[in-house]
Amino acid sequence: MKVIADLTLVPIGAGVSLSPYVAACEKVLRSAGLKVQFHANGTNLEGDWDAVFAAVKRCHETVHGMGAPRIFTVLKIGTRTDRDQSMEEKISSVEKRLGKDLTGRLGRE
Amino acid sequence: MKVIADLTLVPIGAGVSLSPYVAACEKVLRSAGLKVQFHANGTNLEGDWDAVFAAVKRCHETVHGMGAPRIFTVLKIGTRTDRDQSMEEKISSVEKRLGKDLTGRLGRE
Amino acid sequence: MKVIADLTLVPIGAGVSLSPYVAACEKVLRSAGLKVQFHANGTNLEGDWDAVFAAVKRCHETVHGMGAPRIFTVLKIGTRTDRDQSMEEKISSVEKRLGKDLTGRLGRE
Amino acid sequence: MKVIADLTLVPIGAGVSLSPYVAACEKVLRSAGLKVQFHANGTNLEGDWDAVFAAVKRCHETVHGMGAPRIFTVLKIGTRTDRDQSMEEKISSVEKRLGKDLTGRLGRE
Repeated sequence: MKVIADLTLVPIGAGVSLSPYVAACEKVLRSAGLKVQFHANGTNLEGDWDAVFAAVKRCHETVHGMGAPRIFTVLKIGTRTDRDQSMEEKISSVEKRLGKDLTGRLGRE
Repeated sequence: MKVIADLTLVPIGAGVSLSPYVAACEKVLRSAGLKVQFHANGTNLEGDWDAVFAAVKRCHETVHGMGAPRIFTVLKIGTRTDRDQSMEEKISSVEKRLGKDLTGRLGRE
Repeated sequence: MKVIADLTLVPIGAGVSLSPYVAACEKVLRSAGLKVQFHANGTNLEGDWDAVFAAVKRCHETVHGMGAPRIFTVLKIGTRTDRDQSMEEKISSVEKRLGKDLTGRLGRE
Repeated sequence: MKVIADLTLVPIGAGVSLSPYVAACEKVLRSAGLKVQFHANGTNLEGDWDAVFAAVKRCHETVHGMGAPRIFTVLKIGTRTDRDQSMEEKISSVEKRLGKDLTGRLGRE
């Protein structure tokens, strides 16, 4: 079963700067053979269910291993059986309707 | 690694009444040997990481098997290494500070 | 427009024990004239859109005022126009299908 | 109070193709004077608290107005009082640690 997911991992009790932990998790995700897309509030993932969730587990283990005593994660998970769909296709199906590129850095109109 | 999680599973393209799907997922969760607590916006889960995520996967498989072509799930996941904590303890640590039972059905003050 | 929501507020950079902040937010929510239901991973809310979101904003202001430099919140929001539905009705529609009370403390079967 | 948020709006009971609704919401967000960044699982928003939440409310009103009887939305909300931070800065703080551009379309390593 294929998954398109969005992961936000928040270390708790590890201070106010989270970027060292986020960067370490990002390395884990990128070495897991998944399609990954980092964004301002999380990381989009595309891959097989088991590979995606194994990578999420490794992120928790890695961030705890760096000293964070507590982690709060939010995961959005999308699966579908009617047809195969990639993250690029999800984006372009909306772009086509609006007639413009939506992923340029930080549009405002 | 132990997890306390909150699962909300939303079938898409399966009509406006979601309770048949939610009930089927609830059965899966309750047969998985997890601590489960159903609430108005999801189901709280407590158990070992692998058992929790295996049950979530079975929910997706079950709900797709019932005919829902698409599923959107939100999962909140909490882990901690500083100490063991149960769902009951999470609730009572806040109740103690407020000096009242917070889980009575639908308090308003 | 009526809303049924689920709020999880996570103070960041405020140590590992979050219960003082969660309790303060809970007081804000309960004084806002909303239906509230505390659970192990958040607080369910039912009320008018503007009242719900005004209370969420006051929670952020209150928790920052207590010294938390950073807050991460997850909000699930449900609205519907086909019919009125309460949190109790959402729960009982699933309970009816399963023939049992699902909100007893921490069922396992 | 400034907010960086991530919005995912899921129409329920409106069929399996959600892109017409997502595109309409996107138009609302882009006409609201917010910084917006569309991605494969939602839309990142940056702006004043009241402007962000007014736009989210208009999205619900717009999507219900198009005929969707029910909507489920997930919102991640970040606020901080220790310093001002933009979405670009959130991204670059992680990119600096990894020594690479993370927002190129769908990296895999």
